[in-house]
Amino acid sequence: MDRVHQIFATHPNPASDAGQEAFGLVAGAAECAAVCTTCADACLEEDDPAALRRCIRLNLDCAEICALTGRLVARPGKQDPATLRAQLEACAAACRACAEECDRHAERMKHCRICAEACRACENAAGRMRQAIVG
Amino acid sequence: MDRVHQIFATHPNPASDAGQEAFGLVAGAAECAAVCTTCADACLEEDDPAALRRCIRLNLDCAEICALTGRLVARPGKQDPATLRAQLEACAAACRACAEECDRHAERMKHCRICAEACRACENAAGRMRQAIVG
Amino acid sequence: MDRVHQIFATHPNPASDAGQEAFGLVAGAAECAAVCTTCADACLEEDDPAALRRCIRLNLDCAEICALTGRLVARPGKQDPATLRAQLEACAAACRACAEECDRHAERMKHCRICAEACRACENAAGRMRQAIVG
Amino acid sequence: MDRVHQIFATHPNPASDAGQEAFGLVAGAAECAAVCTTCADACLEEDDPAALRRCIRLNLDCAEICALTGRLVARPGKQDPATLRAQLEACAAACRACAEECDRHAERMKHCRICAEACRACENAAGRMRQAIVG
Repeated sequence: MDRVHQIFATHPNPASDAGQEAFGLVAGAAECAAVCTTCADACLEEDDPAALRRCIRLNLDCAEICALTGRLVARPGKQDPATLRAQLEACAAACRACAEECDRHAERMKHCRICAEACRACENAAGRMRQAIVG
Repeated sequence: MDRVHQIFATHPNPASDAGQEAFGLVAGAAECAAVCTTCADACLEEDDPAALRRCIRLNLDCAEICALTGRLVARPGKQDPATLRAQLEACAAACRACAEECDRHAERMKHCRICAEACRACENAAGRMRQAIVG
Repeated sequence: MDRVHQIFATHPNPASDAGQEAFGLVAGAAECAAVCTTCADACLEEDDPAALRRCIRLNLDCAEICALTGRLVARPGKQDPATLRAQLEACAAACRACAEECDRHAERMKHCRICAEACRACENAAGRMRQAIVG
Repeated sequence: MDRVHQIFATHPNPASDAGQEAFGLVAGAAECAAVCTTCADACLEEDDPAALRRCIRLNLDCAEICALTGRLVARPGKQDPATLRAQLEACAAACRACAEECDRHAERMKHCRICAEACRACENAAGRMRQAIVG
């Protein structure tokens, strides 16, 4: 994601000085969205997907919410603050729920272990971004 | 969106009895996402898009947030309540901000008038869904 | 989706006279995306989701591809023709594959029957749009 | 995107041995989607966005198509080959069109130069993935 870092520095009119936090969230959300998508697919291919229903559901929700949140934050121009705050909250909540569920399967399934890590990293990045915008 | 209504009734294990509200939000969010996408494109093609920067930005954010929210709500199975609540909040906030901005241009540009209507309808549908899940 | 129809007529600079076909695809793709999302969720909640792996996968792919295709077509301004053609092709292919798989389960599961219908309707709408743009 | 690389290796039933190419495309598409999103936002904030209409449009289309394509390829399980092929084609076409347009502005606007690079890298990754699946 080096070019994301580079392009942020070229924006003619960034709305805030939270560029570093925004970049961290764009990168973390992209990784988390991809990892959750792969985890859902892997869970579905396990011997007993019925036991992983909740995990698959949370993976799918988290993947889509992180993908969207990363896209919003990739726009450095001025945004509606209430919308951005609520979306960062939704992103952190989705990551937290998915990480907790994946943790329960992490010993048996390595993809769930990696997914829990990616979710926690993204949750932290969303938290740092929220801190940066509320000041 | 008739088939969405039909398929909701066939789900083997819906998490709540908010099916009517969920259907309303799936339909309202799909309309709002498409209308906001068209409004952004129309604003960009107006004579002076520089005067419509804020409108285009809010259109794009609202389109993506509504598309995602509709997708989450199209899954009648059990979801993480904190995530769903925050996402409904983000959806309502995005619709509100976009409707307010579009209202300012509604006299001159008919697409902004239609867009403000679609945003208000989706904001209401998100509010009804939230009421239904918090009880 | 009445407001989508209305807003299309207000665009200051549409790229083609395929507005009717574009509107048909925006509506058909939104319905198909939502119906496929619900079908995947319903399949996952059936007694034996392992038997429905392929269906769930095709549902998810079709949902996302239709959502994207509808969004592209909701922009009436000028688009890159090669990209649009390839995306319409991908949309039709995803709908076809999902409809064929859902047909195999349609007797036992009503959600798959409704989903196959929505996929066929969207495939047709994508075909009509492609005809309209190639002339 | 290290965790994407790691999780790919844990999938219980990958459909092909194109894991390396798939990972390359997941990473390239995530970067390209984010960079195109930022470039559209930057173009909109330039002094004369009317001169950049075509660039903004192609940025937005490319961002969404790459985001979707990366998500499809992040599922290592079996996919419909015709759909995947068409989607890779759409991704390459969108990247090509966006890169060509951004090249025209690359001297004056550094964000367009970075964006053209990200598009070319993603186009190449899509091409390698297509080669890998057609054999």
